[in-house]
Amino acid sequence: MNKKLVSVCLALAFGAGAGYATTVLAQAKPDQLVKQRQSAMTLISKYFGPLGAMAKGKAPYDADVAARNAGFLVALSQMPWDGFHPSTKGIDSKALPAVYENEAKFKEAAERMQGAMTKLAGVARDEGAFKDAVGAAAKACGACHNDFRAK
Amino acid sequence: MNKKLVSVCLALAFGAGAGYATTVLAQAKPDQLVKQRQSAMTLISKYFGPLGAMAKGKAPYDADVAARNAGFLVALSQMPWDGFHPSTKGIDSKALPAVYENEAKFKEAAERMQGAMTKLAGVARDEGAFKDAVGAAAKACGACHNDFRAK
Repeated sequence: MNKKLVSVCLALAFGAGAGYATTVLAQAKPDQLVKQRQSAMTLISKYFGPLGAMAKGKAPYDADVAARNAGFLVALSQMPWDGFHPSTKGIDSKALPAVYENEAKFKEAAERMQGAMTKLAGVARDEGAFKDAVGAAAKACGACHNDFRAK
Repeated sequence: MNKKLVSVCLALAFGAGAGYATTVLAQAKPDQLVKQRQSAMTLISKYFGPLGAMAKGKAPYDADVAARNAGFLVALSQMPWDGFHPSTKGIDSKALPAVYENEAKFKEAAERMQGAMTKLAGVARDEGAFKDAVGAAAKACGACHNDFRAK
């Protein structure tokens, strides 16, 4: 592979982010970590929202959308957690101090949400089971937000 | 399923986003669409960055990280595009007018990037092929940024 070409392309592709792209195994900066974890939460909300509407009967059940979104959510549910690095404690966000004071409980809550999304993806094409699984996933999200996120 | 419980949990889970969660089949607001597409780009950068570093020899090749990140990228590469809705034209962002003036070319560029990420995921555990595929993916990203994104 032409390494120079890749360098140029990465610089083109990621602009200001290229520094990160080339020094990634160094720790990302705290504000970048917060931006990344908030981005994951924004997309979780984007793709979970329609499933919540379906589960509540506010939108018609659509098996294809349910399966696509649930698949995305399995991936997205793995993305926020490394962003809650201790170095981010001082950055303004909705994360409560409990995130860093009770890491084991936070990790457990995060894992419960990931498990709920995996279950959701497994039943996305079965309307009844899907609706129950959406409820369980919403509870997992809400429980963690209650304990670890400012209102 | 207890619908009231799900309503409460969704409201807890998504806070200010609950309006979106309950009216999802209505079009999201333009500023929300921009936030969502930028979130996808932020996460694409997060997970592509380490692969670029590996391809350039700035970080050691790690097949597990390569495969995990490439899998995430296949999902993430599908997420930005519905955020470039015509309703977002007036929102301040790096998107150039060309996005809305040349939709067919933009769609083609987006699809080329998605294809490159899918190929990348397919070869993530083969170091040589992986490095070439990272270069191809970076080119696809960069080509689209060149034409459709402000410097």
